[in-house]
Amino acid sequence: MADIQKIDHYIEAHLEESLNELAVLCKQPSVSAINFGLIECANLVVQSLEKRGFEVQLITTPGAPVIVAEKKGRSNKTLLFYNHYDVQPPEPLELWHTPPFEPSRDGNVMVARGVNDDKGHFTYRLLTLDAFLAQEGELPCNVKFVLEGEEEIGSPHLAGFMDQYADMLKADACIWEFGDINSQDQPLQALGLRGLIYVELSAKTANQDVHSGLGGSIFENAAWRLVWALNSLKGPDEKIRIAGFYDKVQKPTRRDLDLISQLPETSEEYKSRFGLRQFINGLTDGLDLRVAEVFEPTCTICGLTSGYQGPGSKTVLPALAKAKVDFRLVPDQDPDEIIKLLREHLDREGFTDIEITNLGGEPAGRTDPDDAFVQLMVETARDVYGSPMIIQPMIGGSGPNALFINKLKIPIVSAGLGHPEAQEHAPNENIRIDLYLKAARHLARVLTAFSS
Amino acid sequence: MADIQKIDHYIEAHLEESLNELAVLCKQPSVSAINFGLIECANLVVQSLEKRGFEVQLITTPGAPVIVAEKKGRSNKTLLFYNHYDVQPPEPLELWHTPPFEPSRDGNVMVARGVNDDKGHFTYRLLTLDAFLAQEGELPCNVKFVLEGEEEIGSPHLAGFMDQYADMLKADACIWEFGDINSQDQPLQALGLRGLIYVELSAKTANQDVHSGLGGSIFENAAWRLVWALNSLKGPDEKIRIAGFYDKVQKPTRRDLDLISQLPETSEEYKSRFGLRQFINGLTDGLDLRVAEVFEPTCTICGLTSGYQGPGSKTVLPALAKAKVDFRLVPDQDPDEIIKLLREHLDREGFTDIEITNLGGEPAGRTDPDDAFVQLMVETARDVYGSPMIIQPMIGGSGPNALFINKLKIPIVSAGLGHPEAQEHAPNENIRIDLYLKAARHLARVLTAFSS
Repeated sequence: MADIQKIDHYIEAHLEESLNELAVLCKQPSVSAINFGLIECANLVVQSLEKRGFEVQLITTPGAPVIVAEKKGRSNKTLLFYNHYDVQPPEPLELWHTPPFEPSRDGNVMVARGVNDDKGHFTYRLLTLDAFLAQEGELPCNVKFVLEGEEEIGSPHLAGFMDQYADMLKADACIWEFGDINSQDQPLQALGLRGLIYVELSAKTANQDVHSGLGGSIFENAAWRLVWALNSLKGPDEKIRIAGFYDKVQKPTRRDLDLISQLPETSEEYKSRFGLRQFINGLTDGLDLRVAEVFEPTCTICGLTSGYQGPGSKTVLPALAKAKVDFRLVPDQDPDEIIKLLREHLDREGFTDIEITNLGGEPAGRTDPDDAFVQLMVETARDVYGSPMIIQPMIGGSGPNALFINKLKIPIVSAGLGHPEAQEHAPNENIRIDLYLKAARHLARVLTAFSS
Repeated sequence: MADIQKIDHYIEAHLEESLNELAVLCKQPSVSAINFGLIECANLVVQSLEKRGFEVQLITTPGAPVIVAEKKGRSNKTLLFYNHYDVQPPEPLELWHTPPFEPSRDGNVMVARGVNDDKGHFTYRLLTLDAFLAQEGELPCNVKFVLEGEEEIGSPHLAGFMDQYADMLKADACIWEFGDINSQDQPLQALGLRGLIYVELSAKTANQDVHSGLGGSIFENAAWRLVWALNSLKGPDEKIRIAGFYDKVQKPTRRDLDLISQLPETSEEYKSRFGLRQFINGLTDGLDLRVAEVFEPTCTICGLTSGYQGPGSKTVLPALAKAKVDFRLVPDQDPDEIIKLLREHLDREGFTDIEITNLGGEPAGRTDPDDAFVQLMVETARDVYGSPMIIQPMIGGSGPNALFINKLKIPIVSAGLGHPEAQEHAPNENIRIDLYLKAARHLARVLTAFSS
């Protein structure tokens, strides 16, 4: 039996153990938005790594601790994994078919908050490493892990961590927290992440809610103030009206457009999966839609809250109103600068009363699609998926990859088990077990090629 | 001892009994917005009336039942009381210092949801009637009560009730559910109520919330759709942009302006009590402010809800967004017509996707300030309050008085114990016991003068 077959065999034979380890992690809520269960989850991660003989450090930050782990291997090359142990809030709870923190299995599917994003990605990687340790007595190369606990809130303390500890993470390449297959089960290689700046905008017009019959004609209304301030940010034409917002936006290159044009069409899939009426800006399908999807910066209202929200009517004039708003940024937009432009915009438009709370952000980051490590990732996929990875020069989501790219000067690639119906950030988040196995087997081939 | 002194004496001697009866009513939640506890509360009201020898009928409607009660008295004149047994929702619960449905007393103050609006107004009236029954063996005139259970949601079934049963309510005059004193403890005679139309506006753009990194650049966002639709209704200039909205608005008459100019200044009181930054439309104080307060129709956002509303950040693109909106209407605006204009406006502005749910409404209604019964009310107050009532030709709140004015052709006046810090429709709703006594004593004088 060739070496890689032994590794595959081990992975398949120990799948249930790995899924049990994943279930233990998922049972531990770790919601960074409300700082709930983070330390407890970090401790579980530390145990998992120490069990494999990693040297582990739990490094405190002003927020959740960062875990750094290292284990030497046969070759002198070093591979770094970036993962996170925090998850998105489980709300709205009523839409889950099973409780979000009680992992459940149904055939090929496992459901839990965080099972895909990002706990399953951590444990499938451990499963591959276990296979090498069991079959070959050692790892094929040096392996490092860095896991943070604030990815889902924009990694507010990771820049400070990197300023101090980047040296510990020195490596030749990095595999990012996630990876996806598309709706045809072809693996995707996502090479760029958009940046993010997440803010809460709040209006306060009185010290209490007032009977709308009393104040309606003469009192300021916090909900109206907020609506007007939001409307000043973006109108129905979807153009963001903050002066200077688009100034540093880099257009996609010719190579980007080439790569995007090779991606499969997803417009019909989106429409049917999410029940969409239409896309915005008159977009329908094809290259224009796919380019806009990832190369356009956004201003998204993520939440609104004010006044009476129960059933029926309550005639009240709200004293408070809040909106959660995220901006997805593209290279070379700078989150700190966007916040400054936002404040200036609101002041200029007469909304000095609207308070901005910065809930975290990070700039966009990209890896060169022609880097040798990218090609290694793409080609090693053939043996597992029946096709090479399809390169996405940029995807819509965000993460602190720019921090790693800038500090460590290494390529960052994606590899994992995400799939189009994984419901990440949404109720009934799930993984497919077949893809869990494939991701572990792909990683075995990556490690082998990388180390030789 | 003169007759009226005996009556006063009885009222004072039986105050605690009356407050106990009030507490029993307040302990019974009766929230029409969520159809909670209405039948139970109606039954308590029926018991209170039957105990006094009223002939009581509980008349079913498609919504909450209407209670009609009648008891003959010495003179052949008939006085009608309109009250309601429903209350506003107690939310936000966290701002109550004591539980909303557990009445509490602290010296001169009694706190509970509904204690002022409107249960305390019902029981102080019973206390006055008790005094006549005990001291004189009969009521001085015929007395009728009509109590509905849907006032706080715009009395959606009262028009249908009046179509069928208006004859049962025939009377010479009507005392409305409430009455107020101002911040100088002077009694107010409120003669007009604005109309109301309450709607829920909702946007739905997908079958589920989506990761904002995925959909942000190309999917419609329900929260944005709602914000833009709301912004189309009214801009920061506070002018309502619905075509035709102002067409039927009656300007205040010269007599209205005279009466309003005699009202005490309240601008500083409003600012300090509610912590206001400023009034809208550049209004500061004086007649302009007071006229706008009651003679301007409004468009008030009462509530907003969409997406993630918890602490911290969640990067989600909401599939659903809802706003509660009320319009306070002035003579001769018609609620049904306003709904029609609103639909036309939204369609014209490109918001055919915004759904309107009609949560109820009623037109404005007024009584002539020079009616003899109004003068009787005003003058009989002197003996109790040390000054006559101050006439308000119109107030900001709403109620179904137009239905009674149009069907019964009788004057409708106000009398009661409301005070500027009663917190109606807000947390910690309360009454002052001294005003409870005064309201009962004033009513005794009204009944005596009316019957003679």
